[in-house]
Amino acid sequence: MTKIEGLIAATFSTFHEDGTLNLDLVPVLVDKLVEDGLRGVFVCGTNGEGPNMTVQERMAVAEAYVKAARKRLLVFVHVGHNSIGESRKMAAHASRIGADAISAVAGFYFKPSSVENLVYCMAEIASAAPDLPFYYYHIPALTGVGMDMVDFLRLSEEQIPNLAGIKYTASSLHEYQACINYGGGKFDILFGYDEMLLSALTVGAKGAVGSTYTFAAPLYRQLMAEFNAGNLEGARRAQHLSVQMVRRLTQHSSIPAQKAIMAMRGIDLGPCRLPLKALSVFDSKLLEAGLDDIKFFETLNIVHAAKPA
Amino acid sequence: MTKIEGLIAATFSTFHEDGTLNLDLVPVLVDKLVEDGLRGVFVCGTNGEGPNMTVQERMAVAEAYVKAARKRLLVFVHVGHNSIGESRKMAAHASRIGADAISAVAGFYFKPSSVENLVYCMAEIASAAPDLPFYYYHIPALTGVGMDMVDFLRLSEEQIPNLAGIKYTASSLHEYQACINYGGGKFDILFGYDEMLLSALTVGAKGAVGSTYTFAAPLYRQLMAEFNAGNLEGARRAQHLSVQMVRRLTQHSSIPAQKAIMAMRGIDLGPCRLPLKALSVFDSKLLEAGLDDIKFFETLNIVHAAKPA
Amino acid sequence: MTKIEGLIAATFSTFHEDGTLNLDLVPVLVDKLVEDGLRGVFVCGTNGEGPNMTVQERMAVAEAYVKAARKRLLVFVHVGHNSIGESRKMAAHASRIGADAISAVAGFYFKPSSVENLVYCMAEIASAAPDLPFYYYHIPALTGVGMDMVDFLRLSEEQIPNLAGIKYTASSLHEYQACINYGGGKFDILFGYDEMLLSALTVGAKGAVGSTYTFAAPLYRQLMAEFNAGNLEGARRAQHLSVQMVRRLTQHSSIPAQKAIMAMRGIDLGPCRLPLKALSVFDSKLLEAGLDDIKFFETLNIVHAAKPA
Amino acid sequence: MTKIEGLIAATFSTFHEDGTLNLDLVPVLVDKLVEDGLRGVFVCGTNGEGPNMTVQERMAVAEAYVKAARKRLLVFVHVGHNSIGESRKMAAHASRIGADAISAVAGFYFKPSSVENLVYCMAEIASAAPDLPFYYYHIPALTGVGMDMVDFLRLSEEQIPNLAGIKYTASSLHEYQACINYGGGKFDILFGYDEMLLSALTVGAKGAVGSTYTFAAPLYRQLMAEFNAGNLEGARRAQHLSVQMVRRLTQHSSIPAQKAIMAMRGIDLGPCRLPLKALSVFDSKLLEAGLDDIKFFETLNIVHAAKPA
Repeated sequence: MTKIEGLIAATFSTFHEDGTLNLDLVPVLVDKLVEDGLRGVFVCGTNGEGPNMTVQERMAVAEAYVKAARKRLLVFVHVGHNSIGESRKMAAHASRIGADAISAVAGFYFKPSSVENLVYCMAEIASAAPDLPFYYYHIPALTGVGMDMVDFLRLSEEQIPNLAGIKYTASSLHEYQACINYGGGKFDILFGYDEMLLSALTVGAKGAVGSTYTFAAPLYRQLMAEFNAGNLEGARRAQHLSVQMVRRLTQHSSIPAQKAIMAMRGIDLGPCRLPLKALSVFDSKLLEAGLDDIKFFETLNIVHAAKPA
Repeated sequence: MTKIEGLIAATFSTFHEDGTLNLDLVPVLVDKLVEDGLRGVFVCGTNGEGPNMTVQERMAVAEAYVKAARKRLLVFVHVGHNSIGESRKMAAHASRIGADAISAVAGFYFKPSSVENLVYCMAEIASAAPDLPFYYYHIPALTGVGMDMVDFLRLSEEQIPNLAGIKYTASSLHEYQACINYGGGKFDILFGYDEMLLSALTVGAKGAVGSTYTFAAPLYRQLMAEFNAGNLEGARRAQHLSVQMVRRLTQHSSIPAQKAIMAMRGIDLGPCRLPLKALSVFDSKLLEAGLDDIKFFETLNIVHAAKPA
Repeated sequence: MTKIEGLIAATFSTFHEDGTLNLDLVPVLVDKLVEDGLRGVFVCGTNGEGPNMTVQERMAVAEAYVKAARKRLLVFVHVGHNSIGESRKMAAHASRIGADAISAVAGFYFKPSSVENLVYCMAEIASAAPDLPFYYYHIPALTGVGMDMVDFLRLSEEQIPNLAGIKYTASSLHEYQACINYGGGKFDILFGYDEMLLSALTVGAKGAVGSTYTFAAPLYRQLMAEFNAGNLEGARRAQHLSVQMVRRLTQHSSIPAQKAIMAMRGIDLGPCRLPLKALSVFDSKLLEAGLDDIKFFETLNIVHAAKPA
Repeated sequence: MTKIEGLIAATFSTFHEDGTLNLDLVPVLVDKLVEDGLRGVFVCGTNGEGPNMTVQERMAVAEAYVKAARKRLLVFVHVGHNSIGESRKMAAHASRIGADAISAVAGFYFKPSSVENLVYCMAEIASAAPDLPFYYYHIPALTGVGMDMVDFLRLSEEQIPNLAGIKYTASSLHEYQACINYGGGKFDILFGYDEMLLSALTVGAKGAVGSTYTFAAPLYRQLMAEFNAGNLEGARRAQHLSVQMVRRLTQHSSIPAQKAIMAMRGIDLGPCRLPLKALSVFDSKLLEAGLDDIKFFETLNIVHAAKPA
């Protein structure tokens, strides 16, 4: 299986003010992501509020992204769900509509009791789209499922023929490095903490999935370019700006705050779904002022104009 | 709103060996529950593996229980789901099919950020079945959402016109007592820890929802009868047997172990859904031997024959 | 071993305004506790800020309590410490000065890895005062050590000759009942949640250790008297007042809030040790107003005057 | 304040078979650490089982290290303790005996309630050794205290005149990078996860404190040399060997496993203190075989012989 290099946007779902889906915004957003040099989109994941939507809505969003992408971007569809039956429905649908890969979190009401049990669950889901690469979505901070990922690779190798790798959203870079090196590097381990991208590159990351790549890809592309050119100081500077930006985000509810930034960048994607709530106008102004303090938009515009390879 | 007195079985979902729904078993089980003197059933909750099923399946199970109950039992339908849209679908459906009440857990991927936020979420769900009493299902050990329940009652009073009370599944009996006494006792606070029923009765519980009531109701009815008759020693003895039984259950995966006990009692409800797994024959024998050690079935048969009021 | 019946105050440590020990207050407090009908004091535990004091100070406080008690109260000395060596020093000292029992929490930096490991640790401590009854102090909310307590009793029976029982500070009354009934009721399981005392009595508690008994013993003695007389309504009323009081306490930092109540009752025990901080005058007034709302002091004075047996 | 560059061994405490201190081993170990090119030792911390020892013992161990070091190594003395009084005693002692720095964890029975509260606690401790640099020891996995470290630096700047920085033992490299860059880089932020050293270097780490540096410093010195020379592949290889070694360690109780490795390297430091337990001979053999599988000792000997600068 070829490994993915570059940035994948953990993209948003787009809503009308009344909370219903607004799929007309998807092509607008996708064109912007193509222009920003992204390699793919990860649809209906955490940032895309997958768990807040119905299965019908998730399939509609996935379809909208596949159509808008027109093969310019890889489309990963997140099909994780507590009900493996619903997951299988979404997996089969992803395959039918021409998505490029599927991914799923572990069940998080009844949590897997062992790595082996987790592998059984994921095998059930993956087998509903046997032609698509499957990525386990490891995000213990949200699922509460923190199994050893090297053990997962070892046990799932035989059980999941279409296993491509892991979307690894945790800060434990030692385990991440062990996964990257597992079996001579046979799996694709995509890194999921934007604010630690540089550190992940250092231990061997090639591809990364993250929410802030949706609006700040040029910054991260510069980071990668500097890193690849051996200019560590430049890469650190870019990463540090990302760290400062994320620290400001997380003073608010993170996803609504990121949607507010999208609106500041000119693309209003609408509100969020409960329990998430759009930022108040006041909080949005506060966030904007905080980002201005660190010259976030200014820097973003400069690196965007510079267009690193 | 009238308050519910007596026992409500947190009933199981019934599957064929291949994991598909086997609704033919529902009337068999319901007749048994009627015979055992239960006041109601709680359908598609934790014990009923609601989160492991598709929305279609959950609606089919709810319908089967309503039909089988024929007003002999109250039917509570659990409609909790991370997607409030799916919850609303199931709530409206519960109303259409003639269920007696609905209940919902908090979202557990994106968790409510405050009591107020939780109330907004529950109000959205409850308003989809405005004619049915709504019970918030408080089960922090599984959802990770541990808001103050007195604050919840205070804030939801005005926001949720059909709020009936709480299915309270936590051991914090001080808060439970505060909820029972809130507003002069205006809400119905059903207790959810079978192994602490006696303690809950002492602080004012009238109704209880629990999984072991599905197979051991006679024991608990005796407990309540002894308690009501002022015979504390007898009530303690019954509760202690329940404690010992639950300790043996929880040495295994609890829901599969309870399904194994149902089979020992003559009603084979089929396997569980992943990530849950049916007990192995060996574990089932081990469990049975453990229950024999404490004369569980023997006692159950005696109290059943005695039929306390 | 005889079991303890009645209330044991998890008493406070007393400080000068500059934070040094003020042992002159101990006899004043002890006389009040004797007058309030307490059976004993638990010294240098959580409420007594044991972990905030040096070993020298803990021994001085223990000594002051033993002297002041003059056999009118049982004195339990908490000797738990991450260093078993320090624990042993304090245990031997407690024996020398004529304390009535010792107790210890589990280590909470390096936590025991198994029940067996916990038993080894407690055996080391208990053996330093072989003539004194030893109570394991189970308080998982603070130590993070939540071992099964029935297993603990089973494994420690042979390893700890002077094991008397458990100071059980958790809300899991099912396990509590199992402990009470273990081995035909051979161990003394003291209950530690004042706001759930009634429920614990119902499943068989005889003795209880709690912080609010230091200032509200008459209320709890009335609760026990009503319970023993079969007057459940009266017992519930007393417990409910306790629940409301504790809810008001825990809106603040609990130990400083209780010291503020002591001051309201006329005994100023001084500040707390960092990281705890005395309530501000404002917060103290707020707390007092909240307690007035529920007529806490008024009721306490009435039941105190009534002096239940 | 000058920043520390290089590796600091989170060194062990040394015991006789009966569990008493064996200080004769300290000079042997120190000479080895000097030979291995370490910059300093961190004494009586987590790895040194500080919390398992009495205050007297901790002071004796600190003194033995200071004497043995003879200014060839910097000696950091960990003085953290739940009792700030004990901490102050140890801090003053560290100053008297000529230690180079002190460090303290947050209280972990009563945990600080806010960053501000944490700063008050640390200021109390630091002021007992005003002539020594003070490092806050951030290790949330063990203390359960996970305050924001940038906020800590901001609030402690004025309150703690001798604040030198943080011993940062957490995997959140984004926060780590923010700390390094705080105030133009004025503080010394020592990194504490050996298995993530390379990633930390990338975002700006200069100094690191870690337990495996006690026996594997040559490997990490090679890692740093490769990194500084811009040879990323070589640095990754060294880090990966460290990751594999640590994965094998943590299949056992980590500190006893590391003492077993010390014994394999020829320096038997004796057993551990309860609740820690020395590895069984069987487990020690298992660990050795696992390390042989990854050619750990072989590689260590080669890099040691090569002696990178």
